[in-house]
Amino acid sequence: MRKDTLRLGVVGLGTVGTGTVKIVQNHAAMLSARTGTSIEITAVSARSRSKDRGIDISAYAWEDDPVALAKRDDVDVLVELMGGTDGPAKAATEAALSLGKSVVTANKALLAVHGQALAELAEANGAQIRFEAAVAGGIPVVKALTEGLAANAMTRVLGVMNGTCNYILTRMESAGLPYDTVFQEANDLGYLEADPNLDVGGIDAGHKLALLASIAFGTQVDFDAVALEGIGAITIEDISRAADMGYKIKLLGLAQMTDAGLQQSMRPCLVPASSPLGQLEGGTNMVVLEGDAVGQIVMRGAGAGEGPTASAVMADVCDLARGIDLPVFGQPAASLAKAAPAVSATPCPYYLRLTLRDEPGALAQVATTLGNSGISIDRMRQYDHSDADTAPVLIVTHACAPNDLDRAVSALTQIATVVGAPVALQIQNV
Amino acid sequence: MRKDTLRLGVVGLGTVGTGTVKIVQNHAAMLSARTGTSIEITAVSARSRSKDRGIDISAYAWEDDPVALAKRDDVDVLVELMGGTDGPAKAATEAALSLGKSVVTANKALLAVHGQALAELAEANGAQIRFEAAVAGGIPVVKALTEGLAANAMTRVLGVMNGTCNYILTRMESAGLPYDTVFQEANDLGYLEADPNLDVGGIDAGHKLALLASIAFGTQVDFDAVALEGIGAITIEDISRAADMGYKIKLLGLAQMTDAGLQQSMRPCLVPASSPLGQLEGGTNMVVLEGDAVGQIVMRGAGAGEGPTASAVMADVCDLARGIDLPVFGQPAASLAKAAPAVSATPCPYYLRLTLRDEPGALAQVATTLGNSGISIDRMRQYDHSDADTAPVLIVTHACAPNDLDRAVSALTQIATVVGAPVALQIQNV
Repeated sequence: MRKDTLRLGVVGLGTVGTGTVKIVQNHAAMLSARTGTSIEITAVSARSRSKDRGIDISAYAWEDDPVALAKRDDVDVLVELMGGTDGPAKAATEAALSLGKSVVTANKALLAVHGQALAELAEANGAQIRFEAAVAGGIPVVKALTEGLAANAMTRVLGVMNGTCNYILTRMESAGLPYDTVFQEANDLGYLEADPNLDVGGIDAGHKLALLASIAFGTQVDFDAVALEGIGAITIEDISRAADMGYKIKLLGLAQMTDAGLQQSMRPCLVPASSPLGQLEGGTNMVVLEGDAVGQIVMRGAGAGEGPTASAVMADVCDLARGIDLPVFGQPAASLAKAAPAVSATPCPYYLRLTLRDEPGALAQVATTLGNSGISIDRMRQYDHSDADTAPVLIVTHACAPNDLDRAVSALTQIATVVGAPVALQIQNV
Repeated sequence: MRKDTLRLGVVGLGTVGTGTVKIVQNHAAMLSARTGTSIEITAVSARSRSKDRGIDISAYAWEDDPVALAKRDDVDVLVELMGGTDGPAKAATEAALSLGKSVVTANKALLAVHGQALAELAEANGAQIRFEAAVAGGIPVVKALTEGLAANAMTRVLGVMNGTCNYILTRMESAGLPYDTVFQEANDLGYLEADPNLDVGGIDAGHKLALLASIAFGTQVDFDAVALEGIGAITIEDISRAADMGYKIKLLGLAQMTDAGLQQSMRPCLVPASSPLGQLEGGTNMVVLEGDAVGQIVMRGAGAGEGPTASAVMADVCDLARGIDLPVFGQPAASLAKAAPAVSATPCPYYLRLTLRDEPGALAQVATTLGNSGISIDRMRQYDHSDADTAPVLIVTHACAPNDLDRAVSALTQIATVVGAPVALQIQNV
């Protein structure tokens, strides 16, 4: 049902909240023309009432308590921009939904962990939860997947969904700087979350992947089943060796439904340097959606920031103003399957980097060990090592089962001429 | 309003129609789970009833006359996949809309020419026209623009929206073949429309651009105002000279609202080789959407073909099944402004290729002529010409007004040492 007026209560006035207020204030006529509804903010809540945010909030009612705001009679829709898996964000969301009020949120953590329960609560009360802003910032990927590709059985969802990690990896390559230095740079630039592990540990991006996987495959969101690996162990040597073989290293999310169950991972992978993902520089996000009818759709844009994220928040608000009514994850929560996590992952090629002691037969021993584990070698390079008694060796395997590869890596570690632990990274040919 | 069952009448059973029937037949359960509605085909119409299309249409009522099909009591939604600016496609569309039945169409020509009148007819009868399949095949760009970026004042829309032209241009470059040869290849491969000028003349892509411009800027669709220029005059020499300067030549659509009015063009332009548009190879489409809040969103995917286009058709059908109700061009037809076409286009840099007779002072004369026309030179290269008495000269200008550039080109043509007409192409830094 379209209403003449849609009254928003905004909790959280950080970057995204401020951007959202700006759009409502600056584009009132445009929003009204497009939605047929007057979109207004009636109440706000944040940690500080007096902080200068460059916006005038004096016309809005103030609430210290987000839950009280959610319950206000003059709030039709809760816009939750506080963040956090639990605490006030969850309490305010539940309060709004319980009263049949829809919630627009940028909170990936909340939905990745409590998504199923909240979707059930929403649908039981005739309310919606909209979360375009929670995944890949300004890119309208939730809408593309839920609506634009609704006629596809999705085959894969992939993406670079954490701009900070992509900034770090591409900056390491372009400036030839080690991880620690670029990490510090990113921190100084304010690119990192208060808990940096949310970024570099892949958690934030893993949250986003879990949300997209739920929509793509009609399954209950299951963040715990996302295989997570951060970028902290990526060295400048791996980046340049990968480039040498025609690849880039990205923190890559991958979700696919296989005969072995639902596979979800967020880990550093190699992708072809010439692919759209390989060419993605800096803090930009990219999501790749693959469906049985449409083939491959690639979407690229700013994954964070005031304007882009507020654009996504307000797109959801416009949908509500236009009377668009959709289940939270694209189909009724009760119909979402509890997917079994994949017991074995889909075979893929691997990048292996080893350090070999310079002894006769060392390379042969490595090749034999891989062969015995059923791993077949596509390309192998031993690099110049005139200044050392160890040689860097690079191997690109043919597609092999990750379990087999893990076993092979264990076996390699037992070889006396192999120095230290081999580095093994998946190659995803997107 | 969601209905329990949505009954489709499909007119046109070519590639896209066949793909649409396949999705309805193969994905009934998935579509029902996602939309809460049973989506069925009740009637079909095409030129031949007996042609083998690899699908079973025996369960559907047959109509020889598309208009009769549109009027059937058991048809809720007309799916128009015949094409054509007028004739039966228009008649069937009008018949359906007049009865308050929504129309899903892939027909860019019909909407680019009659879009405003049809939108008014639809809205007067409480019906919708949905045309995701009409623009950029499987890429959900109409949805992204209308809904996903609804909170943005759009600044520019750009794109490569004709896969055949992009195939021809990239194939010319990769194989080093002249236009005529690759044109013939494309024709033999069945890539070209029956009237090839629709493709290589930029008309088909111009139709698509006009539709996106209407949504982006809230204006009445105005195909006649699109400045059209095809790719027929592009030579292999221009492609390689452009590459030499770091550019690719693309048939590029550009729509932007300026102080001088609405600017719409579909013409061969140079784009940076390293940009997403520059990297686009083969028959793939790419649309770039720029908004004041979101910045730049890039979408890439198959622009044609059975699966991708049927995916877009069925996405619109799913929207209707889900009860989503939107004005045809994103806001009520009556509120769409009649935009004045731009009297002068926005300044941009230009690529100029001249052939100069090898005489003292020839180059200086060119530079002077440009300077006198207010055109400032960014880069200039004179190429080796030991085997000829003429020299190829390449110039990249700083941004200049297209009118000034046109005047400068006229002046250059008057110079005795300039052989033939200079080639002038816009450079768009996307």
